[in-house]
Amino acid sequence: MLMSAERNLTRTFGHVSPQDRHQLLGQRGAVVWLTGLSGSGKSTLAYALERALVSDRHTAYVLDGDNVRHGLNKDLGFSPEDRDENIRRVGETAALFAHAGVIAIASFISPYRAGRERARECVGGDAFIEVHLNVSVEVCERRDPKGLYKKARAGVIKQFTGVSAPYEAPTAPEISIDTDADDVDTCAARIVTYLREHGYLSAELP
Amino acid sequence: MLMSAERNLTRTFGHVSPQDRHQLLGQRGAVVWLTGLSGSGKSTLAYALERALVSDRHTAYVLDGDNVRHGLNKDLGFSPEDRDENIRRVGETAALFAHAGVIAIASFISPYRAGRERARECVGGDAFIEVHLNVSVEVCERRDPKGLYKKARAGVIKQFTGVSAPYEAPTAPEISIDTDADDVDTCAARIVTYLREHGYLSAELP
Repeated sequence: MLMSAERNLTRTFGHVSPQDRHQLLGQRGAVVWLTGLSGSGKSTLAYALERALVSDRHTAYVLDGDNVRHGLNKDLGFSPEDRDENIRRVGETAALFAHAGVIAIASFISPYRAGRERARECVGGDAFIEVHLNVSVEVCERRDPKGLYKKARAGVIKQFTGVSAPYEAPTAPEISIDTDADDVDTCAARIVTYLREHGYLSAELP
Repeated sequence: MLMSAERNLTRTFGHVSPQDRHQLLGQRGAVVWLTGLSGSGKSTLAYALERALVSDRHTAYVLDGDNVRHGLNKDLGFSPEDRDENIRRVGETAALFAHAGVIAIASFISPYRAGRERARECVGGDAFIEVHLNVSVEVCERRDPKGLYKKARAGVIKQFTGVSAPYEAPTAPEISIDTDADDVDTCAARIVTYLREHGYLSAELP
């Protein structure tokens, strides 16, 4: 038992092992972390991947930027500090899902390299799969599905990633995806193949 | 689609229905919320319940006060405001687990009625099962497994629930349990029976 004596906390552990959960769910818990600009297709890919995994009888769940900001992180704004805290909490929550045996699909702009690295450490290196939606700002701006680039260019939205706030692209993501070149189901299938080839998904389901 | 125009958020929805998840996991996602004094046996019961459910091939996961305070909520202390925020975030996180189809077992002193009611609303009424560990402060203090009552009586720990901070007992919990009268496996079995009789657990598993 690890004691956090100064806060009178005792870390407790359960009686269910990762192997128990692996056998129960036919998969190893993991976090698929989608990062990319607004309009790069993160949410669309996240939900397509969730659908593909569940159709194969796997247990997956999307943690989405917009949705989390309506609940867990509704107290946070878009300052650098709040973006940092947003990603910190999501990393911790995704880690809980992975620990529970679920494949958590985190879909967040997550523009800062340091924030993503902290999420990776929090989840544990080999259960964290960083997926870069490698789409240029020009393409995202052309799509502009929510009209946000237009607002950002007009100065209505401040600190908009890719326009007036930085995006630090991953240097060594596990997977790099160009949603401009391939359709969403092809992109989702690539991630499923990666998960299968790296032992996250059991061949035989219970 | 619900728009949060002022924050430029778009709420998105997936392509996996609660019925899909019910069929996949053989259960309805829910939150079993254990509330009671320090030493009332919440963590012990939570992990026993998790073990019992997983042994029956159900998917369950414990969100434990001490553990969450090492991760998601490590920025929070024990002032009334921080306790409030602790329970708010746990309620939101438990709701995500229930939405994912998991039976989340939340094990928190959660001394304030208002905080528990907010968690219930957040999860959605019929998926929230409040379990009161109805054990007197005298019994908890006699057990004192972590030596915290001793420290609280000596004034080393301030604002200790049941000693120097209030505990508002549930008025109409779904289940009331006396861990002084029954052993932990009997208590866990009572909750499993409740879940089965109320349709959370399918009789036939895939």
